[in-house]
Amino acid sequence: MLHSDRLFPSDPTTRQIARELYAAVHDLPIVSPHGHTDAKWFAEDQPFPDPASLFIVPDHYIYRMLYSQGIALEQLGIGQAKLENPRAVWRIFAENYFLFRGTPTRMWLDFAFQELFGLTKRLSPETADVYFDTISEKLATPEFRPRALFERFRLEVLATTDSPLDSLADHKRILDSGWKGRVIPTFRPDAVVDPEFAGFRENVARLGELTKLDTATWKGYLNALQERRSYFKVLGATATDHGHPTALTADLSAAAAAALFAKVLDGRATTAEQELFRAQMLTEMARMSVEDGLVMQLHPGAVRNHNAVVYQKFGRDKGADSPAPTEYVQALRPLLSRFGNEKDFTMILFTLDESTYSRELAPLAGHYPCLRLGPPWWFHDSPEGMMRFREMATETAGFYNTVGFNDDTRAFLSIPARHDVARRVDCSFLARLVAEHRLEETEALEVAKDLTYNLVRKAYRL
Amino acid sequence: MLHSDRLFPSDPTTRQIARELYAAVHDLPIVSPHGHTDAKWFAEDQPFPDPASLFIVPDHYIYRMLYSQGIALEQLGIGQAKLENPRAVWRIFAENYFLFRGTPTRMWLDFAFQELFGLTKRLSPETADVYFDTISEKLATPEFRPRALFERFRLEVLATTDSPLDSLADHKRILDSGWKGRVIPTFRPDAVVDPEFAGFRENVARLGELTKLDTATWKGYLNALQERRSYFKVLGATATDHGHPTALTADLSAAAAAALFAKVLDGRATTAEQELFRAQMLTEMARMSVEDGLVMQLHPGAVRNHNAVVYQKFGRDKGADSPAPTEYVQALRPLLSRFGNEKDFTMILFTLDESTYSRELAPLAGHYPCLRLGPPWWFHDSPEGMMRFREMATETAGFYNTVGFNDDTRAFLSIPARHDVARRVDCSFLARLVAEHRLEETEALEVAKDLTYNLVRKAYRL
Amino acid sequence: MLHSDRLFPSDPTTRQIARELYAAVHDLPIVSPHGHTDAKWFAEDQPFPDPASLFIVPDHYIYRMLYSQGIALEQLGIGQAKLENPRAVWRIFAENYFLFRGTPTRMWLDFAFQELFGLTKRLSPETADVYFDTISEKLATPEFRPRALFERFRLEVLATTDSPLDSLADHKRILDSGWKGRVIPTFRPDAVVDPEFAGFRENVARLGELTKLDTATWKGYLNALQERRSYFKVLGATATDHGHPTALTADLSAAAAAALFAKVLDGRATTAEQELFRAQMLTEMARMSVEDGLVMQLHPGAVRNHNAVVYQKFGRDKGADSPAPTEYVQALRPLLSRFGNEKDFTMILFTLDESTYSRELAPLAGHYPCLRLGPPWWFHDSPEGMMRFREMATETAGFYNTVGFNDDTRAFLSIPARHDVARRVDCSFLARLVAEHRLEETEALEVAKDLTYNLVRKAYRL
Repeated sequence: MLHSDRLFPSDPTTRQIARELYAAVHDLPIVSPHGHTDAKWFAEDQPFPDPASLFIVPDHYIYRMLYSQGIALEQLGIGQAKLENPRAVWRIFAENYFLFRGTPTRMWLDFAFQELFGLTKRLSPETADVYFDTISEKLATPEFRPRALFERFRLEVLATTDSPLDSLADHKRILDSGWKGRVIPTFRPDAVVDPEFAGFRENVARLGELTKLDTATWKGYLNALQERRSYFKVLGATATDHGHPTALTADLSAAAAAALFAKVLDGRATTAEQELFRAQMLTEMARMSVEDGLVMQLHPGAVRNHNAVVYQKFGRDKGADSPAPTEYVQALRPLLSRFGNEKDFTMILFTLDESTYSRELAPLAGHYPCLRLGPPWWFHDSPEGMMRFREMATETAGFYNTVGFNDDTRAFLSIPARHDVARRVDCSFLARLVAEHRLEETEALEVAKDLTYNLVRKAYRL
Repeated sequence: MLHSDRLFPSDPTTRQIARELYAAVHDLPIVSPHGHTDAKWFAEDQPFPDPASLFIVPDHYIYRMLYSQGIALEQLGIGQAKLENPRAVWRIFAENYFLFRGTPTRMWLDFAFQELFGLTKRLSPETADVYFDTISEKLATPEFRPRALFERFRLEVLATTDSPLDSLADHKRILDSGWKGRVIPTFRPDAVVDPEFAGFRENVARLGELTKLDTATWKGYLNALQERRSYFKVLGATATDHGHPTALTADLSAAAAAALFAKVLDGRATTAEQELFRAQMLTEMARMSVEDGLVMQLHPGAVRNHNAVVYQKFGRDKGADSPAPTEYVQALRPLLSRFGNEKDFTMILFTLDESTYSRELAPLAGHYPCLRLGPPWWFHDSPEGMMRFREMATETAGFYNTVGFNDDTRAFLSIPARHDVARRVDCSFLARLVAEHRLEETEALEVAKDLTYNLVRKAYRL
Repeated sequence: MLHSDRLFPSDPTTRQIARELYAAVHDLPIVSPHGHTDAKWFAEDQPFPDPASLFIVPDHYIYRMLYSQGIALEQLGIGQAKLENPRAVWRIFAENYFLFRGTPTRMWLDFAFQELFGLTKRLSPETADVYFDTISEKLATPEFRPRALFERFRLEVLATTDSPLDSLADHKRILDSGWKGRVIPTFRPDAVVDPEFAGFRENVARLGELTKLDTATWKGYLNALQERRSYFKVLGATATDHGHPTALTADLSAAAAAALFAKVLDGRATTAEQELFRAQMLTEMARMSVEDGLVMQLHPGAVRNHNAVVYQKFGRDKGADSPAPTEYVQALRPLLSRFGNEKDFTMILFTLDESTYSRELAPLAGHYPCLRLGPPWWFHDSPEGMMRFREMATETAGFYNTVGFNDDTRAFLSIPARHDVARRVDCSFLARLVAEHRLEETEALEVAKDLTYNLVRKAYRL
């Protein structure tokens, strides 16, 4: 299923250059600085469950597509504590695998099926059972345990995404185990800085308990956040991550911020004040990053839980999120006015609104020393999406204000596939520049390695 | 003028694949589920008038371009009941035909000129009279009568767009005539649901007369709409269409909706209340679609009659409309919260704002079971526009949440040309996926047929 | 460093067509109707200073990139009256020249280095001194004086951009000198029509002194502007230019406008009133253009001086500007309702928001007789940016509602390079249309010449 030239442009000259560039990067180690895998897998190193539980249930890319074509989430076992009939779920998936034609999901899956499980005939109703049996069998072997796969994938670093309320016990167990795999946490404070997050007040209280600080006061609250950041750093974190609805930042006086915090904690804040609080917290987080050196990632622009029915029945992250138009230039001004020129501060911007690449993000990143552009994210983590990113951002921001690839995945087995797609697309873009005599091939080779390996390590301070 | 490889990528490998895909779809029947042709043509089957009246006067794509270059609409006979000097108008057109280089209009016209009228030397001042005479002559023959052309075009279905106030007498005459051509109406209620539509109050009153229901009450008004929908269904309609300025929807209580209706009908509603009324009516229409199974089409985002001078002199639809930024994610939430998960509801979304393809439309259609994406519309119904649509929507929505092609035309003779362009562009897109080893050629063949024929029939319930 | 096929598509068929088209336009004279060179250079015809002062200090494209990677503006001598150590600045630049890979800046510079200075080994730490010495040496020769270069570049016209408060003494000196070079001013009134411009009130007073009119009254103020426009015309101006934050226009009654002016001049106007005043002034400028025939250029959408720290230390135009979303359809309506159908009025629209090309600008320019589309501007003046412009605007606006290329540069030596890039990209776009059988090669040749030479002369009335 996997052609060695896949994703390379068809023009023979360009393809030949792409091949040469790719040959130089395709087996560089994988650095995964942002994602949603579970540290527990590596702490416990237990076998993964059946194929359906491994591939389908955790992957909202898959079941959002199935749902869009009228397949009930119940049929896919979503919401079940343990899948009752994984083979039945797998068969539904196989029958509908044609829906994924032209999508990155299909590319990632085919890669995992062939490269990891040796399956070379595409998934279909006919091959459904062979797939299910082959995968089940292999998952039971030691070679398919999480740590073995981690090594096989040549993962140099794998960052998870974690709440400040998380004890990071699994990360500690990994460190204590003597296993060499580097699995590091990322400080993602949404649950305690976003007043609209479910359980916000309880979360803030819990933060106080964890840190033995009085998080009912503005000062205690900030100190508690600072302390958790330090704790994350001790366990290896090099970055924070912020999943706000917008990129709005604010720079209130300490008194105004404290008053706003009190109001928010009381539950008396309006929607606008809740947004203002999130905005202020981004600037507070930036301030702490200037102090403790954690790299700040901002992922704005997702409207979460758009489908009320699905949210009520199945909860968050069930494929019912959608991007919205996102503004950066005015939104980031308060934060950048405070910290935009700080020498040791790094802020990595992501977007779900591609119209901002050339209009806002590349111009900002092409000026502010603290700013870097994250790779295409979520709906745009795809061959066409990556190509548009390079085409729209490079001319203004250059290559060196970007930070390599993030797989951002919950699907551990898709990591090599995702990085492979990114490497192929970047090499294809560079190959076109070479073929059009806009870059020397020797330069392109250097840039390819930088995009694959060096820039991510530098940007995330790994 | 028409090269057999037109619109196929120049790269030989990709072109060869595109040719093979196109060979499999180029003579599939035409299904035209959305357009603006006149049922009267097929009811009466009279010869079309002279070339200028046929090609220029009804086609705002043509005279908007001429007008933009300083040619007065009066010179083109726009606004005349009957063209006084069609040959003079035709000559102006011929002299300025070079203005259409690089536009889809030129592609559609060249196709009609060559394929229908056998003209192979491009229109120019030199060929103007030959064109005029040749076309005039052929139009007088039986082979160029509307029904003969309908059959020659191999139209399987042709949908018109009609007001609820229309008696559909022409559709009835077609049905009663025994002629086999399937010409079906589409329920387009803008004139009676948009308070800013010219004559809105009179239109609502007229709706009451037609249905013998009291449309001065909210309940009577809704019942009247429901009744006209049923009547349209009897005459073959399978879909409704809604041409709102925005995609805003609302879900008011029945009491609030009734009060708003009263205000709107009284002429006391503010601009915002008029917008809210349109928003509520979209949700009402969705409710009726859930009940009666008519597929709902939404075409938002056109600012109509932008040029006040042209509007005053010449009226609506004179090429003076322009798209505007359009938001979908928040706008559609009220309607989708009510009906987004209904099994038998289909809503087809269109846009004039291409930035929404990857940001909003594909994510929404890739999740909600009721949603499908309409093809590129109006200003984007063009080779580059179609290619951007596939490149930006496919990776998130897949192919199977799209619905094939709409020609959306007032120019009957352009129908085969427009479908041909769509088939060629889709085949070119698929050919690139095959050439880049992202899709097997056997799969691409299947998808090509689906995009051309199967998806449109399924989505529009034809 | 410069391959003769650079920027042409790699596909051999398309490349061959591109070569042929380019051969027909590559040595047409350069018409530069919009830019920021200094008339003084041509009035005095003194040698340019050292390489760093010539290439780096005036070019915010260069030092914004260096600044984004942590190089202090002080290190680059920005803000120094005279560069203390130009060789040191040059070395920093050379060490960081790799940052410009993939950017148009690198393409422009390589062109100037090779074509003007005969340097063929790319700039790097190793070649830094050779570059510095070679360039310094040549700059001292008569062949590198401004007028000699002007002639060598085959500049047919060069327009500068000037304040109404400028005496245009340098333009006069050029005219009086007997030198044949055509260097014309452009009327750019931002300093006296934008209440937020630094020194606005003093500027308006100064305008009164210059014209001996009472600019404290609305009528006197308008008359003074009209008079300065006439003066600019006498010195060769054919156009005005307007650099507003948005495209908003207004059409107030004379009384309302006068009252607003009084408020603005008093400093009592709110932010919204200041915006309204700018909006009204666009319509006033359009009215004057209808009367005096000056072509009106509108450049909206830049958020200026985004970085407060950089602005305080170094002032305007230091690479800290960023585009913002820009709306045209509603914003321009008041002005277009008044003057949109005037036969002798030309308004050229630019944008920094590429999402408006297909959504707003091409539809508007494809209808209104007064409108033309300016070329891709600033951040979008780049190969990918130009290609996107043609791909997104041509199908709706055609080629003949566009106006050729603007170099818009402060860097005189980059002019030939910039026009060369534009010619190559336009030829590549046309070559694709020919290769895809959407345009005949003979037509493409004609269009290529129009895009390079004829359209700009016509649109700017040169």
